Amino acid sequence: MSFVNTLSKSQISAALTERATNSKGRQLPPERLLALTDGRIDRKPLEAMAGQSILNPRQFDRRGVVAIAQLAALLESRNVEIDKPLDGKIAITAFFEPSTRTRLSFESAVQRLDGKVLSVPDGQVTGIAKGESLADIGEMFNTYGDVVIMRHPETDSMDEIRKNLQRPLINAGNGSGHHPTQALIDWYALLKWRPMLCREDCPEDQQVHLGIIGTPGSMRAVKSFLRLALLFTGAVKKITLISELADPVGLDLTEPIEESVIPINIVNDVREVLDTLDVIYVNSIAFLGDSYRNLDNRYKLDATSPMKRDAVIMHPLARNDELAEDLDETDHNLYFAQASGAVFVRQALLAAVLRRLDKISGT
Amino acid sequence: MSFVNTLSKSQISAALTERATNSKGRQLPPERLLALTDGRIDRKPLEAMAGQSILNPRQFDRRGVVAIAQLAALLESRNVEIDKPLDGKIAITAFFEPSTRTRLSFESAVQRLDGKVLSVPDGQVTGIAKGESLADIGEMFNTYGDVVIMRHPETDSMDEIRKNLQRPLINAGNGSGHHPTQALIDWYALLKWRPMLCREDCPEDQQVHLGIIGTPGSMRAVKSFLRLALLFTGAVKKITLISELADPVGLDLTEPIEESVIPINIVNDVREVLDTLDVIYVNSIAFLGDSYRNLDNRYKLDATSPMKRDAVIMHPLARNDELAEDLDETDHNLYFAQASGAVFVRQALLAAVLRRLDKISGT
Amino acid sequence: MSFVNTLSKSQISAALTERATNSKGRQLPPERLLALTDGRIDRKPLEAMAGQSILNPRQFDRRGVVAIAQLAALLESRNVEIDKPLDGKIAITAFFEPSTRTRLSFESAVQRLDGKVLSVPDGQVTGIAKGESLADIGEMFNTYGDVVIMRHPETDSMDEIRKNLQRPLINAGNGSGHHPTQALIDWYALLKWRPMLCREDCPEDQQVHLGIIGTPGSMRAVKSFLRLALLFTGAVKKITLISELADPVGLDLTEPIEESVIPINIVNDVREVLDTLDVIYVNSIAFLGDSYRNLDNRYKLDATSPMKRDAVIMHPLARNDELAEDLDETDHNLYFAQASGAVFVRQALLAAVLRRLDKISGT
Repeated sequence: MSFVNTLSKSQISAALTERATNSKGRQLPPERLLALTDGRIDRKPLEAMAGQSILNPRQFDRRGVVAIAQLAALLESRNVEIDKPLDGKIAITAFFEPSTRTRLSFESAVQRLDGKVLSVPDGQVTGIAKGESLADIGEMFNTYGDVVIMRHPETDSMDEIRKNLQRPLINAGNGSGHHPTQALIDWYALLKWRPMLCREDCPEDQQVHLGIIGTPGSMRAVKSFLRLALLFTGAVKKITLISELADPVGLDLTEPIEESVIPINIVNDVREVLDTLDVIYVNSIAFLGDSYRNLDNRYKLDATSPMKRDAVIMHPLARNDELAEDLDETDHNLYFAQASGAVFVRQALLAAVLRRLDKISGT
Repeated sequence: MSFVNTLSKSQISAALTERATNSKGRQLPPERLLALTDGRIDRKPLEAMAGQSILNPRQFDRRGVVAIAQLAALLESRNVEIDKPLDGKIAITAFFEPSTRTRLSFESAVQRLDGKVLSVPDGQVTGIAKGESLADIGEMFNTYGDVVIMRHPETDSMDEIRKNLQRPLINAGNGSGHHPTQALIDWYALLKWRPMLCREDCPEDQQVHLGIIGTPGSMRAVKSFLRLALLFTGAVKKITLISELADPVGLDLTEPIEESVIPINIVNDVREVLDTLDVIYVNSIAFLGDSYRNLDNRYKLDATSPMKRDAVIMHPLARNDELAEDLDETDHNLYFAQASGAVFVRQALLAAVLRRLDKISGT
Repeated sequence: MSFVNTLSKSQISAALTERATNSKGRQLPPERLLALTDGRIDRKPLEAMAGQSILNPRQFDRRGVVAIAQLAALLESRNVEIDKPLDGKIAITAFFEPSTRTRLSFESAVQRLDGKVLSVPDGQVTGIAKGESLADIGEMFNTYGDVVIMRHPETDSMDEIRKNLQRPLINAGNGSGHHPTQALIDWYALLKWRPMLCREDCPEDQQVHLGIIGTPGSMRAVKSFLRLALLFTGAVKKITLISELADPVGLDLTEPIEESVIPINIVNDVREVLDTLDVIYVNSIAFLGDSYRNLDNRYKLDATSPMKRDAVIMHPLARNDELAEDLDETDHNLYFAQASGAVFVRQALLAAVLRRLDKISGT
């Protein structure tokens, strides 16, 4: 043999796949985030996730968020994973509250890494026997898959299914509870946008005033994002919650907010603070028990809203009319780049939880 | 090259997957069933299944049931199949009566063996053109997949689709007809629990008195289980049907029961016989044409029910309130182990039907 | 090593899969179509499809239709693709109008070539957030998959999703718009049936009088089939539209029909022309905005209909009662062979669009 190629034919072809990016708004190349640590990724917090369920953002410290973000950046910078790290693994996506966006994002993440998917797109309506308990469903899943990704309209659903489930469980949204993977995706976008936010000693001119439009107490994505924001004490100089409620925070976050060194204030009109915000986080959906309602129209943003010139807008999507499409073409639009990072963050998390870090070259 | 590993890198990683077991109740390690024949599996009946449809439990003799159970045990003992025996094969799961439990079990079986799945989770509602005949659907499936796994609320549906279908068809439940793969799963659990039941010369102290709560005539899982029970003439010393009906057997089984050497009697109150039963088979759902009704509450079991100390309870799940959760933690609970064997039995059957036994090392 | 096999073990096993054919009616072996050009396939038009969306049959010239048909024939003659040309590629099947037949056909095509599928079987009902714009959905799909296959009840849906979608889009039916892949499938069957139809110099005794029962203006499959028929100027000597409408053609095709050298006439009773037709194309469904109605019963065909002895009937299926089952066993039945070619045409198209021609040996 006169020639040895280190990549197989199928690896080469996979590597030729074009990189996926967002069509409009800011582009967030992942290389800058990797450059911050000269391409080295902090393996320790990732190894600690092996076999663990991911239920609540409070499981993460700043180091863990940064490690996931950097692993996501590595995967995104290669665009596709040529090492097939999830080979032989089956993920069950059990969506008792339908969400094509989140479900497909997880299913894409799994399949891009060569894992397989058992899909329950609409567990509430089709299939799961009426009246079957979540505990029995968890028992069933033990032999069907290696990890369960569940969304459910009830907040206590994660505890219920874990009564018998022995496989790691990833919370993809539970009622008004949490949405930890969305929060990791949000922070992945912010850290790609301004990598120095990773640092405890973030220079003052790069620190951000963070505005959150919505009600963390009843909006799980907002709540989980805010929970992670509290970890970035060197980077977030101030948080302003914009809500019609006097106490929008809710029980889950009362204590962490009280203990936080980041100053947090609450206003009820976005116009009061809009021109002082560096990052504006918007969401549309508030959960009220098992149902939900949309955000009040008063908090709508469009291209004429008086923002700082380099302010960026985040939104977990899907959106309703709180976020006008005329913002899509502007540099305020970080939400498209935020969405386009989702698959990579979920890949990173799955590789860590399923103990397959060693199969990703470069980690 | 100084070192040759007989497993490829991907084989090693697959082999590292943790074994799946049930969370509670009896554990049924598959090795004891394999040990009964020193690990040798009877290939002849498996080879006879090549290319065959699996429609009715009467297609099986005892030797075939044991061979499937032993192949399932081999697959379970290895936990995952590293030989990828279904590579290149596509299974169509066509569920005209939704059942997440059965559908996912088949889809997990296929994917664990590296086959692929075309999924129709809810054929009645979404997609199959209204009014399209099953014969035309069968014609369509000929070029789409290599095997069709179908559940349908109508008993004659299997005959209908086979008018044009040229691929093997596996009956995953047809109205009040049959559910042969469930029955194989049930017997897999029993044979793992007490391997000597495989034998015609089963010692008397290991023979069982089998109680079946339900109406085989209108409960397809119960009917198929009973049909296979009649094959184990050396192991089942007596069968008691517990039903509110005078004749719970139904037309399908009248003749096999009359011809059977196993004594069968019928009582209408479970309390009459409960303390004499070694195995108690419970089910919740009776089919009445295209609809179904649940089992009468009188036949409910819980941890205080006066059972023999080492009696085991079986249930094909999902359960309603006929089987109390306080039994889960007891040794009577064989139903969780029964459920956790489902994927392996379906793997064994698919490997036999799709002519891929040679790709499973050890057979 | 004393023996080198050029196929890997998994390639051999894949090659052993039985060829899929239709159960009844004419058999259309693909080899005759390949023989027409001594097995050489015209790569140029296939290469021009790389990265392109397939939205409208007018994108094709005759050379492109023949090239797709010949690539499909190559894939069909091998039966399964052992080169795994779509390895690493993800197709999203987004069906906002459910269609099990078309969806499964695409999903089978992708998986047979070792690609992966993200499935949205019922985008209208489950999952896609109510009110989310198709433009936002297109943005989401950019990072989830490599190609999007969409069906939608609204004609302008393809333009809407392409506002942000950067991946190739394949139109699987848009309201009363088009159904280009179905038309390619239809012509694949005709070209296999009579390969000389490929030629501009088709001998006169092989030229066909084509009858189309239906309303191209509101029936997308019929419209797309007719659009491609106009390309075969040397092979189609006459087209007769059989419709109850005075002008069944509709705006899309008015100009191409006026410019065509093929004589086209319109009659409103199939009995007027039936015994002069060589090919009879039937369809059942006419789209009226977002809803549809079935074809009038007057146009029903059965085994007693006075057709030419060697006339063939085509139908894109699913059928209603316009096409009697007593025709299935006759040689008029080309529709089952037509259906059985669908997977191969879609494979050919996907390989071209996703730039994987080089991975198919023989092209």
